[in-house]
Amino acid sequence: MDIETAHTAVFGAGSWGTALAYSLAKAGHPVTLWARREDAAREIAATRRNAAYLPNAELPASLRVTSDLHEAASGASVWLFAVPSQSLRSVATQLADRATEPEAIVSVAKGIENGTLLTTSGVLREALPLAPEARVGVLYGPSHAEEVALGQPTSVVVSIPDLAIAEQVQALFMTPSLRVYTNTDLVGVEIAGSVKNVMALAAGMGDGMGLGDNAKAALVTRGLAEITSLGLAMGAAAHTFAGLAGLGDLVVTCFSKHSRNRGFGEMIGGGKSLEEAADAMTMVVEGMKTTASVRELASRYGIEMPITEAVARVIDGESAPYDEVCSLMTRDPKHEAAHLDGSAFA
Amino acid sequence: MDIETAHTAVFGAGSWGTALAYSLAKAGHPVTLWARREDAAREIAATRRNAAYLPNAELPASLRVTSDLHEAASGASVWLFAVPSQSLRSVATQLADRATEPEAIVSVAKGIENGTLLTTSGVLREALPLAPEARVGVLYGPSHAEEVALGQPTSVVVSIPDLAIAEQVQALFMTPSLRVYTNTDLVGVEIAGSVKNVMALAAGMGDGMGLGDNAKAALVTRGLAEITSLGLAMGAAAHTFAGLAGLGDLVVTCFSKHSRNRGFGEMIGGGKSLEEAADAMTMVVEGMKTTASVRELASRYGIEMPITEAVARVIDGESAPYDEVCSLMTRDPKHEAAHLDGSAFA
Repeated sequence: MDIETAHTAVFGAGSWGTALAYSLAKAGHPVTLWARREDAAREIAATRRNAAYLPNAELPASLRVTSDLHEAASGASVWLFAVPSQSLRSVATQLADRATEPEAIVSVAKGIENGTLLTTSGVLREALPLAPEARVGVLYGPSHAEEVALGQPTSVVVSIPDLAIAEQVQALFMTPSLRVYTNTDLVGVEIAGSVKNVMALAAGMGDGMGLGDNAKAALVTRGLAEITSLGLAMGAAAHTFAGLAGLGDLVVTCFSKHSRNRGFGEMIGGGKSLEEAADAMTMVVEGMKTTASVRELASRYGIEMPITEAVARVIDGESAPYDEVCSLMTRDPKHEAAHLDGSAFA
Repeated sequence: MDIETAHTAVFGAGSWGTALAYSLAKAGHPVTLWARREDAAREIAATRRNAAYLPNAELPASLRVTSDLHEAASGASVWLFAVPSQSLRSVATQLADRATEPEAIVSVAKGIENGTLLTTSGVLREALPLAPEARVGVLYGPSHAEEVALGQPTSVVVSIPDLAIAEQVQALFMTPSLRVYTNTDLVGVEIAGSVKNVMALAAGMGDGMGLGDNAKAALVTRGLAEITSLGLAMGAAAHTFAGLAGLGDLVVTCFSKHSRNRGFGEMIGGGKSLEEAADAMTMVVEGMKTTASVRELASRYGIEMPITEAVARVIDGESAPYDEVCSLMTRDPKHEAAHLDGSAFA
């Protein structure tokens, strides 16, 4: 791949897809942004703004926008999938015939597909069987789109089994304000990035209930231990969970005002019903469906995930956030290592 | 120690000392709070409020307040030191003759003494040579005093070499809203709790410069790796840095509006001089002096601590926060494990 001339197709014109397309185009790289709806594509192309999802970025004239999936993919060396994880399969499947064309296939969506319990790279490998598996990976990390669009310093991780390809994607995306690391632990990066949205729901519920920063810090600490336990059981490397896709992304999602999953949890914690909260969201809340998948994964791998269980019970209407907090605070006194020894960090 | 009747002397009537005295007294335990200034002690005793440092807590009538150090220590089973780390030695030394009396001696101040480079338990061991070393430890963790005073859920760690004594202190402090874990890794807990204040200064500088949550998440991630590297070199256990005193306290300090160290850094990042920022603070900013100590420790143990170095250069007037951020963002492309492999998490 010639980094200077490599063409990237960004599938999905939500906030993160638009922000990455913007960043690439601004750095001088050829980019085509695919929007699902024709009217959305037309409006973005005409106004050079994505008013619905990323209003503060003025998109360069060089950025092409289309609602034709094959037109977007045509001639692209890099395919970047920025659609919700539960829709990824249906979008990717439409491109199956030409999956030998790109040199790198990258998901930036975070989630675990219901039913199959596959991470997004797993979905892409199934939906695109012609694509060499070593070229399929993800770009994850603590990266709210709004901040990337403002040029605020951001660091992310690209994980693709073929390290040489990962390094090309790293070089392609790197700018003075967007720093890209490589990480060869694909399963670790995907589990970390996906399960953090479950913890973000819990953090938001705490916010909605008026809990403070002390409680959230404890939640982040125990949440990361829980994520790490699952990841290790699935073959991930320990250091990934201490890195940008693990600790970094967990922290930003649990504390940032930009986080949708946290915001959704906040509405639930504040007393809104699931339906009321869902009605108030204009974007997909990945954590909702991922919680069910993670609960199944925990059971499959025999991992205790008390926070995930608590979030799942609240989502399923089996208990209230307040009761879950009380039960977490009033368990028997413990030695700290007892809950950490099972994790990567011990 | 009989938990029901054990008397605690809290030395230091700042916000955290007052909050812990309040929490103990409210749970029905005998407590004496020592304030350095006689007028402060008198006012707190008369008004049942610590207006200067913890205005929102109404102190129970059972809580005794005095400015006489020996009166406070008299009959106490637990000594709790809540004075700034650089003043700890001078306060503790005055109690040296009676250091065999308490069954537990606990510091809640976080810092590394300048010159000696000792943690607070190290200072207490030197200042109180008659005290059995196995009884001397710390109580650390993500615990802003303001939230503890409001009864918001909080989890902390008590670390004392004699685990039986640590468990007694755990039982003494545990309430439905204050959850206490034990951790036998004293050096790890102390290094984690102390060095996080250096990272809080960096996080605040970023806030003052208008950096966003993406950048702060990256800072927290790399900051914890840096803290862990130092701790491991000093003999700490890896899991401590993934626990409440490590990750938990780092996160709350870097994100909370309550954090003084973060707030001080924010003034510097916003363009205030060190003198102007210091004038605006009514409480001690532990991170300032600890930064110098940590820089020396890093050199002694041969550990690379780029964020600590950056903070030290800003404090010493050798460079500006903006230049330090640019140099951190524009280094050569890296594989993520390269900076994590040296840490506990690898």
